[in-house]
Amino acid sequence: MATIEDVAKLAGLSRTTVSRVINDQPYVTDDKKQRIIDAMKTLGYVPNSSARRLRRRCTETIAVLLPRVTNPFFGKLIESLEQEASRNGYQVIVCQTHDNKQKELDYLQLLKTKQVDGVIMASLINDWQDIEPYLASGPIVLCNEYRPANGVSMIHIDHKKAAYESTAHLIHEGCEQLAYVTGGHDTFIASERKAGFLEALAENDLQFDPKLEVNWALDVNDGQKVFQYLIENHSHVDGVFTGSDEVAAGIVYAASQSKLNIPGDLAVVGFDNQMLSLLMVPAITTIEQPVEDMAAKTIEVLVEKMNDKGTNQERRFVYPHQLIVRSSTNREQILSQSAPL
Amino acid sequence: MATIEDVAKLAGLSRTTVSRVINDQPYVTDDKKQRIIDAMKTLGYVPNSSARRLRRRCTETIAVLLPRVTNPFFGKLIESLEQEASRNGYQVIVCQTHDNKQKELDYLQLLKTKQVDGVIMASLINDWQDIEPYLASGPIVLCNEYRPANGVSMIHIDHKKAAYESTAHLIHEGCEQLAYVTGGHDTFIASERKAGFLEALAENDLQFDPKLEVNWALDVNDGQKVFQYLIENHSHVDGVFTGSDEVAAGIVYAASQSKLNIPGDLAVVGFDNQMLSLLMVPAITTIEQPVEDMAAKTIEVLVEKMNDKGTNQERRFVYPHQLIVRSSTNREQILSQSAPL
Repeated sequence: MATIEDVAKLAGLSRTTVSRVINDQPYVTDDKKQRIIDAMKTLGYVPNSSARRLRRRCTETIAVLLPRVTNPFFGKLIESLEQEASRNGYQVIVCQTHDNKQKELDYLQLLKTKQVDGVIMASLINDWQDIEPYLASGPIVLCNEYRPANGVSMIHIDHKKAAYESTAHLIHEGCEQLAYVTGGHDTFIASERKAGFLEALAENDLQFDPKLEVNWALDVNDGQKVFQYLIENHSHVDGVFTGSDEVAAGIVYAASQSKLNIPGDLAVVGFDNQMLSLLMVPAITTIEQPVEDMAAKTIEVLVEKMNDKGTNQERRFVYPHQLIVRSSTNREQILSQSAPL
Repeated sequence: MATIEDVAKLAGLSRTTVSRVINDQPYVTDDKKQRIIDAMKTLGYVPNSSARRLRRRCTETIAVLLPRVTNPFFGKLIESLEQEASRNGYQVIVCQTHDNKQKELDYLQLLKTKQVDGVIMASLINDWQDIEPYLASGPIVLCNEYRPANGVSMIHIDHKKAAYESTAHLIHEGCEQLAYVTGGHDTFIASERKAGFLEALAENDLQFDPKLEVNWALDVNDGQKVFQYLIENHSHVDGVFTGSDEVAAGIVYAASQSKLNIPGDLAVVGFDNQMLSLLMVPAITTIEQPVEDMAAKTIEVLVEKMNDKGTNQERRFVYPHQLIVRSSTNREQILSQSAPL
């Protein structure tokens, strides 16, 4: 590989002058600058960016922390974040935490060691007091995940309200024995959703049986297991709230391999309006999040912070969600259709 | 933020001694070492890794380049690569190229500037001659994507043979007017698949009508458009080869909204055996790739290279694939079932 000395030699100039050009320092004539740039091109010389970035203290890179890219919600979020970041001259690297506290902190080190300029946390599994010290090293913005107090900018929907609406819809469709299915993560979003679910039940004078709570379901395979668990142990269940379209799809698929009818015997709601929720037969009722708008705002806030070096105030942006009703909960339609069959 | 001077002061030792400990250099007693480590902990001091890594020339980070994480095949590949990398003490960052030549080269710069120790290319859109120079900066291994000649280690399935088998299966099921649907990327995998498709046709004395080639289909939405395009312009088509389960799912979904029957009127094959291909109604015939085995071998080869610094030979590993036949092509079953309905 070519060195800075090779460049100096080919350009017929001193190492110091080459160094000045590389680091955008003054006192170099345009002619000399051009000779050095030409020499760098000819030799294929790339200034060592670890060293250069160390001096400049900027990497033009943003890290996005999320649990896993195989969850299509996060896949879509990454697409939107990357598009916006690119428009602002930043490249994005994606870091999967797998909801592991240590991994989350390991990736935050990228900020502390100045390997990225800013971090977007689309999930948050550590206590906030363990994240807070990293704010001294660079800006962090929460997108999707959030928390009650201030101290960090947050862009999200109201998950409590969304869960409330899904649950109220199930009850409106005649469901009385509701199961509550999650991945079991101890996050603020999870507690908000649970609160919304319970509020809808309480408002309709329904009791929640804690035995109908499943806290280990993350994907389609888990959804199939949830279905087996419920029909074998709690066959009176007639509605399921899930925090995931993938889990809901697993339930719908397992039901299609059984004699049970969705939504007649069991109504199911998902979350996130992934493509999968539309493609399933029956299609799955779900919650739509305005991912593109949230991503655009997140990049806007983060870029502002990266430029202002943390002088601006922390803000919260709550975006509207939408309950999308499809066949997996449309019990009235099914009941009226079932006669002629 | 604490500095190296703060650590030296708290530990009651010189800056040089602190520096020795940070850089794992000899001539420091265990007692002094412990005092420095304790002081670093107390102050929350993190040695600047850009500087440290620059000296050590290793980042313990691997970059994986792929087109987009929203394609579940790549999502699954990332999961498997990350698991194996983690077992070997490496963290993974994911870089989306969106099949853009410039972005691909931009991310390869991470290698040239020593910000990652190695690169896995799960896709390859540039000419090889434009990639080759980066090999001087660090190891690159191809996983999934491949090329005819040597010069780089490759881990992949035989895409020509896989496409041949899918196509021969469609013909065996009675299809005679076959459409060929791809994303239109000019990659070696794409040319291999096309060759396999054409070989199966030729062996069965079938002609390929170039008008039945679609080269702009990437996802579920595109699949729906492909269906509309085919029935409106080439209604005699009775079989579709797609290089993507997502595109195949879009075709199956669009057909379910029409009067056409899959597979009776139109048989469809996908690629990659994504969960979606199993969940669709009818379920989609597809090609299974042994992703976990390929990922494990890829990390093994790359780690070897990162340790040996490129002294080992380039190798090719071709893994077996499997044609998984499901309802979307099972025309005989449908024809025999259709009588009693």
